Amino acid sequence: MRAIETLITELARLPGIGRKTAQRLTFHLLQQGPDDSVRLARALDAVAATVHDCAECGYVAEEERCEFCRDPRRDAGLVCVVEDAVSVLAVERSTEFRGRYHVLGGRLSPLDGVGPESLRIAGLLERVRSGSVREVILATNPSMEGEVTATYLHQLLGGEGVRVTRLARGLPMGGDLEYIDGVTLAHALLTRQEVAG
Amino acid sequence: MRAIETLITELARLPGIGRKTAQRLTFHLLQQGPDDSVRLARALDAVAATVHDCAECGYVAEEERCEFCRDPRRDAGLVCVVEDAVSVLAVERSTEFRGRYHVLGGRLSPLDGVGPESLRIAGLLERVRSGSVREVILATNPSMEGEVTATYLHQLLGGEGVRVTRLARGLPMGGDLEYIDGVTLAHALLTRQEVAG
Repeated sequence: MRAIETLITELARLPGIGRKTAQRLTFHLLQQGPDDSVRLARALDAVAATVHDCAECGYVAEEERCEFCRDPRRDAGLVCVVEDAVSVLAVERSTEFRGRYHVLGGRLSPLDGVGPESLRIAGLLERVRSGSVREVILATNPSMEGEVTATYLHQLLGGEGVRVTRLARGLPMGGDLEYIDGVTLAHALLTRQEVAG
Repeated sequence: MRAIETLITELARLPGIGRKTAQRLTFHLLQQGPDDSVRLARALDAVAATVHDCAECGYVAEEERCEFCRDPRRDAGLVCVVEDAVSVLAVERSTEFRGRYHVLGGRLSPLDGVGPESLRIAGLLERVRSGSVREVILATNPSMEGEVTATYLHQLLGGEGVRVTRLARGLPMGGDLEYIDGVTLAHALLTRQEVAG
């Protein structure tokens, strides 16, 4: 059962898919007949062959530049800096952002040997220096490394004459004070806002 | 983003994988680089090309007959009849069965147009009539259609001079009387067993 075993192993490498789920998926595909497996295989091949990083922002693209960098309706003066491509999807889901992106491809983590040169930071500086950018929104993840990365970028962009902002920190919708961590609550207190009358 | 969309759609066709999970898996694969996608594609192609139904029992096989039908240590006189290949995995997990299998490829469901001729029933009769089978264990799922299928097979095999048994019905391990359905509890009462002293 070498082919079946191999497929189970490959599927189980995907995040959130354990061995038992991989087995269930494999047997589902076997039950559907070979057409389904082949169609999924072709979709994977197509992605592997055509998708690469956008030459401008690092997001996924099938042409030279991604859908956002090619869209003239997106504000090129507003750049949202994120760690990875999934973060772009998250910001898009908010439907509040009509600017462009810059995908770093990770976050600073000296202990893992990830320094500024490992990330798409030179490209960001280049975009800012080209003069068309008014504001850079730092939207790295709210983790220790994300904070460090944001602080580094803030300092780096300090002298470039561009507005640098960060996503607000505070209570998440549906959150419960009882279960909110202290750091978040401290942030929410320090950046408390006037109640609109 | 045609290739990416296609892959998300194909992954979302898998059972238990919604659109959001499919998107997360796709972006994970994109982040890993093309090698992972290609390896998964090859595993799928290999399964599509080499796996078929065992000529004897209908379970998945990469050679003419499946691993169980080829295994001389498995008792060929004891045949466990199941609806599908995943059921074989379930019975194997019990580690209590050392016989062979017969995979029907579904269950009787007249409303969906699934009659006896749509299932691997002629092959089962053939195996029984070949004379080597002592006992047939009916292990269809404990659903309405599974029951109907088992009853049909029981009648069909009645005159063949072979022992026909069914999996015991009763309380599942870890179950709680409060939450057990009435039909199961009725079964458990009717087939109650003497407490071994």
